Amino acid sequence: MDKQKLIMLPGPTNVSERVMQAMLKPVINHRGDSFRELYKEVLEKTRQLFQTQGDVVVLSSSGTGGVEAAVWNLIRPGDTAVVPVFGEFSKRLAETVEMAGGEVVQVASEFGTAPTLEQLKAAMDKVGSFKAMFLVHNETSTGVAVPYLEEATKAAREHGAFAVIDAISSLGGYAIPVDRWGVDVCITGSQKCIAAPPGLALLSVSSRVSELLKGSPPKTRYFEILRYLEYGMKGETPFTPALPLYYALDEALEELIEEGLEKRVQRHDRMSTLIYDGLAGLGLGAVAEKSVRSKTVIASYYPKGIDDAKFRRSLSQEKGVVVAGGFGPFAGRVFRVGCMGQINEGYVKTTLGAVRDTLAALSS
Amino acid sequence: MDKQKLIMLPGPTNVSERVMQAMLKPVINHRGDSFRELYKEVLEKTRQLFQTQGDVVVLSSSGTGGVEAAVWNLIRPGDTAVVPVFGEFSKRLAETVEMAGGEVVQVASEFGTAPTLEQLKAAMDKVGSFKAMFLVHNETSTGVAVPYLEEATKAAREHGAFAVIDAISSLGGYAIPVDRWGVDVCITGSQKCIAAPPGLALLSVSSRVSELLKGSPPKTRYFEILRYLEYGMKGETPFTPALPLYYALDEALEELIEEGLEKRVQRHDRMSTLIYDGLAGLGLGAVAEKSVRSKTVIASYYPKGIDDAKFRRSLSQEKGVVVAGGFGPFAGRVFRVGCMGQINEGYVKTTLGAVRDTLAALSS
Repeated sequence: MDKQKLIMLPGPTNVSERVMQAMLKPVINHRGDSFRELYKEVLEKTRQLFQTQGDVVVLSSSGTGGVEAAVWNLIRPGDTAVVPVFGEFSKRLAETVEMAGGEVVQVASEFGTAPTLEQLKAAMDKVGSFKAMFLVHNETSTGVAVPYLEEATKAAREHGAFAVIDAISSLGGYAIPVDRWGVDVCITGSQKCIAAPPGLALLSVSSRVSELLKGSPPKTRYFEILRYLEYGMKGETPFTPALPLYYALDEALEELIEEGLEKRVQRHDRMSTLIYDGLAGLGLGAVAEKSVRSKTVIASYYPKGIDDAKFRRSLSQEKGVVVAGGFGPFAGRVFRVGCMGQINEGYVKTTLGAVRDTLAALSS
Repeated sequence: MDKQKLIMLPGPTNVSERVMQAMLKPVINHRGDSFRELYKEVLEKTRQLFQTQGDVVVLSSSGTGGVEAAVWNLIRPGDTAVVPVFGEFSKRLAETVEMAGGEVVQVASEFGTAPTLEQLKAAMDKVGSFKAMFLVHNETSTGVAVPYLEEATKAAREHGAFAVIDAISSLGGYAIPVDRWGVDVCITGSQKCIAAPPGLALLSVSSRVSELLKGSPPKTRYFEILRYLEYGMKGETPFTPALPLYYALDEALEELIEEGLEKRVQRHDRMSTLIYDGLAGLGLGAVAEKSVRSKTVIASYYPKGIDDAKFRRSLSQEKGVVVAGGFGPFAGRVFRVGCMGQINEGYVKTTLGAVRDTLAALSS
């Protein structure tokens, strides 16, 4: 078996031994009491993560499946949605709205930046009335995080719209109190700041959304949120759950709650500062403007003359540290470091040392 | 930690220690060489399961997600589909076709039976030209398997239609040589006769389907088959894969190939006969007519006066054997036994003994 490397990807990320071992718990009936207990636990812990008294669902899918669920449940043909587009994942989100028959009002900004709150509000004012805002919080492709989730949510709701936040690569590293801010749907993934294995998408669902859905079922069965809420009442999922991943998620959320969400957020804060400062000390510049730089994904330009594939292969094979390449227009020019979940000073130090040595070896 | 019980459900089913342990393999980059090797292995082994030289995809979703993928990729609004409906899962399949905007021509038969091949062909002749036939092979809800997959496929193709087979609870216990029979899409799940944990759907995809999709993208991103085929060429999945489940699937398929598909099918054959005979010896009658009874799911009526919940609770708690209840019109009147994957004489004997003793205890 390969040795476990230090996974500094923007997800999947390092998973603790305790969470890994949880996957070995017994196969059980997903329509029986043991699963009902497990799932109720998972839902209760998920509520704590979203800071909500409301509904949550866990889907057996990647985060992209969670986004597709949010879009298909809210958008009907002809509905208008306001979508800030400032990277690969927000671009995909806009396309998904169009697939569902929605009209997208894009609020675009150059990759590496985010639209300002003023630009977003101006777009909303221009449209007047619209069905939903779909806002990617943290652009995993560029390491940009928008700093105005609460204000954007408020603005969307003032226009009578649903506020949907894609926090796949941020929730847990950031706190998003969905009830207090009025977020209608917030989406995250198991393999990012929660530090569980990949394969599950977690969503918070406001009562406004479930009211809407009661009169207007979506065109998907696998991602029909109301069906999950109804089954969730009795501690079940409508379709066979990916059981080992639920065991692992339960354990990972337990770890998160033991640490405390606030402390975990502060840790992400501190560790990301160490990474940004360390990379700057090596003369490497971040893709993101400082005002919008992400605490969970650090995208950094290569020095001139460094080959992306060679660098990442050497970093992985010689140093055992795995980082990601650039996305879209940044492919080949940028590497991305995840600052998620189990991230700690040892990981940061190892990563920075490995980056330094590998750059030196490739430059010599 | 709870003790592992004998899981005689119609999926999830018992998973070998070797397959469970595979989930503990290292977290790796799903855009790196190690994953590419793993996924290419998985795809190659999946091809052997479907007996195809053609394309296959593995989705991070339950079997229901796999069915939704098949429907959304093939059906466009206004398309007509012929769908035999003879249980809960075929009923759901018909509804999913309607969600995608398709017109469904149902070929219905009473639950516990299946439409005859003649009825199915007559319906096709009456419709004349249609887009696709969606045929559930094995109705997990009633323990009925249709015995004419090859003939139905041929008939559908003679009408210029795509032949889609939902073999979620059967493939591996039955052989379905998709190339030889001309099946366009065959769907199965990881947690049935493959005996891996739940959470992955496997699909075979004929070249006729990929040709269609090139000119006509579906309205789903997460389930867009062509995207999976394109990424699959380089050994990747378009979205973050549920990694531990891919490790487990790889190992479970390896076990299947070591045994040999033919031998595994024969084993399911023999074991299901033992179960049917054993239950008959206890005076219990099967829901399915003998000509269409399933080799992988045995649905059996309770004797008069036996309470379903009490029976299954006692069987699980006292005997450590887990079976499923009845579905829809059969709820409370029927229990269902899975005959899948790891099934062997020891499991059968334990199960029959436990059923006998529990019935006796509850009748006394």
